[in-house]
Amino acid sequence: MEIIKGGVTAAKGFEAASTAAGIKYQDRTDMALIYSKVPCETAGTFTTNLVKAAPVKWDKQVVDSGKKSQAVIVNSGIANACTGAEGFGYCRETAEAAAEHLSVDAEGVLIGSTGVIGKQLPIDKVKAGIGALAGKKKDSLEKGTEAAKAIMTTDTCEKEIAVTIQAGAKTVTIGGMAKGSGMIHPNMCTMLAFITTDAAITKEALQKALSEDVADTYNMISVDGDTSTNDTALVLANGMAENLTIEYGTKDYEEFKRALHVVNEYLAKKIAGDGEGATALFEAKVIGADTKEQAKVLAKAVVCSNLTKAAIAGHDANWGRILCAMGYSGAEFDPEKVDLFFESKAGKIQIIENGVAVDYSEEEATAILSESEVTAIADIKLGEETAAAWGCDLTHGYIDINADYRS
Amino acid sequence: MEIIKGGVTAAKGFEAASTAAGIKYQDRTDMALIYSKVPCETAGTFTTNLVKAAPVKWDKQVVDSGKKSQAVIVNSGIANACTGAEGFGYCRETAEAAAEHLSVDAEGVLIGSTGVIGKQLPIDKVKAGIGALAGKKKDSLEKGTEAAKAIMTTDTCEKEIAVTIQAGAKTVTIGGMAKGSGMIHPNMCTMLAFITTDAAITKEALQKALSEDVADTYNMISVDGDTSTNDTALVLANGMAENLTIEYGTKDYEEFKRALHVVNEYLAKKIAGDGEGATALFEAKVIGADTKEQAKVLAKAVVCSNLTKAAIAGHDANWGRILCAMGYSGAEFDPEKVDLFFESKAGKIQIIENGVAVDYSEEEATAILSESEVTAIADIKLGEETAAAWGCDLTHGYIDINADYRS
Repeated sequence: MEIIKGGVTAAKGFEAASTAAGIKYQDRTDMALIYSKVPCETAGTFTTNLVKAAPVKWDKQVVDSGKKSQAVIVNSGIANACTGAEGFGYCRETAEAAAEHLSVDAEGVLIGSTGVIGKQLPIDKVKAGIGALAGKKKDSLEKGTEAAKAIMTTDTCEKEIAVTIQAGAKTVTIGGMAKGSGMIHPNMCTMLAFITTDAAITKEALQKALSEDVADTYNMISVDGDTSTNDTALVLANGMAENLTIEYGTKDYEEFKRALHVVNEYLAKKIAGDGEGATALFEAKVIGADTKEQAKVLAKAVVCSNLTKAAIAGHDANWGRILCAMGYSGAEFDPEKVDLFFESKAGKIQIIENGVAVDYSEEEATAILSESEVTAIADIKLGEETAAAWGCDLTHGYIDINADYRS
Repeated sequence: MEIIKGGVTAAKGFEAASTAAGIKYQDRTDMALIYSKVPCETAGTFTTNLVKAAPVKWDKQVVDSGKKSQAVIVNSGIANACTGAEGFGYCRETAEAAAEHLSVDAEGVLIGSTGVIGKQLPIDKVKAGIGALAGKKKDSLEKGTEAAKAIMTTDTCEKEIAVTIQAGAKTVTIGGMAKGSGMIHPNMCTMLAFITTDAAITKEALQKALSEDVADTYNMISVDGDTSTNDTALVLANGMAENLTIEYGTKDYEEFKRALHVVNEYLAKKIAGDGEGATALFEAKVIGADTKEQAKVLAKAVVCSNLTKAAIAGHDANWGRILCAMGYSGAEFDPEKVDLFFESKAGKIQIIENGVAVDYSEEEATAILSESEVTAIADIKLGEETAAAWGCDLTHGYIDINADYRS
């Protein structure tokens, strides 16, 4: 496996474009297109929120139908959530406009939306945007980066990655882009991830690889504990690498899944570290667990704790809050067996042993916690399982972004 | 039922005192005593956190033993959590010192602690403090207020209330004090509530009244979602009202429970509204629910949502976040049936009807949301059950208090 330059246009046969459609922002791009020269097997995972945005319902229908997809249209101005039948109708109009401009099947057009909730889309601007996107699309890496920028809301940087693997004698590429949480006119955070690959792979294998991996990557990040109505991860596989079709359970499948994991974990961590107002990526690792599930529950409780996140913002080795969060997580463990360490580029330090503080240097701990990527490692000494979760610190910036009046 | 002046010394036979023991603060009182002239039936509820502070373990043992209690010793400097056998030993030493100074049974001394976690108590200062408390205790209302002040950490005001009811021909009084969340040297928020009553009541009835009511009061508040290691609510009943002993299930029991509920709800709301950095008490009411549990889950999800809390700080009628939080709460409902209202002293306004925004005035909504007590009312139109939960807005102040380095 090799990490290469690029994002959604790194794999063969994928093109992208961005345009400034003026849906919300007046001074930047706010629509993106991903297009494949040939139809793609498609896998998707979607928000578990009972309140689902119209594009989530639309995409789920496309993925569940088993039909191949060939294009993704994203807008970063309006979430199209809580918009009733009218909002769902705009999904159909969007897909039909894309079908016409791109000469693809409307039932194979996927839609991503993020932005203000409860507002209806200006469908004429969306349609004009689709025309512009269709005219500009290209397979260059730069176009992939442009698309990654166009889907940003309060993100401070675009998020993309690509990797290659060997499947038989063929090189298979997987590339992806994602956006994180937040809006300038605040509503609810939305995570969108779009992955493209030229792998030939069955729909079953693609969906299983995505569904299994999402549990260890996107589902292990938290910026503020608020599960969006729009969360979506999609993988499009167009088969243009001409490898022998990857079947579920084979060696090639395992290699594909490992590569997909690298892409998803990278994007997930980028989203967490670029959380609204964040100054640091905060990783919690639980080791020595009985079961993977126990490790995951404990790790996620730590990155979700407001008190812990505020302590990370203050570079404060406030280990009591971490133990406290583990204690209310619902997972069983023995607090009097826990060893806790902090680690970053600046070093590694043990803070507690068997649930009680060791005589550590606060200065050294503060130095370690002052880096932009910080890890807390809890060894619960019960078994061999491990898990990681990713979040960020809680700062004034988060409040500023989200308390702002929607004028 | 009548609300009267006073707190823990309002009921007959209860005395209180405070003292500056210098456990952490140098410029204020940090120890409190509640004392009853005669031994009391005692009920308690405690944190569900797997990591339990030593005083929680101690009090649970006292309550479970069925023995009567006669004194409560509280310190607001050190939480005595994650302190191992040494910390539990200090609970015993505290109880023994109180027993000696107050001529009571050590097995009937309850202990409350809040403050820094992981640090051992300066037991000599605690013992000296107990001596001072014993010398100063009185049954005046002022002494109750002094005690309520001494248990504060980052609280901005003391929290006390008293009510009377008639039980037969006798007047029964219930008084209480509580502290909310936060520390100046931050660790984890801790909620402590101490209720005294001169009611004659069986231990069974007292414990049932407390346990049932806690589920609707203290367990329905949230400042930051972090369940403390030290949370404790205790009720001491000394029988000095000379009413016929209240048994579980009688009419007097129901009246007692209603009065206890008034005390608990008042203190719970005071804690929520005085959350760290808060500028507003935020209440979420769910009406028209199928079941009480459904209403509670939905209401609590709303007050726990960071995004909603940040919107309240910005006086922003950001209803999408409220619907979003209800959607991920885990409770079933139909988003397309929900009506949502905001209400405060400044008025009441409908924001959505059947899941879609109505044409409301943002100015009017902002005016309503600019008050210091704000309510969101969600009617889910499925049945007759209702529930309320209480929280606060999320502000820079919360970050300032909790990101501070523990120097």
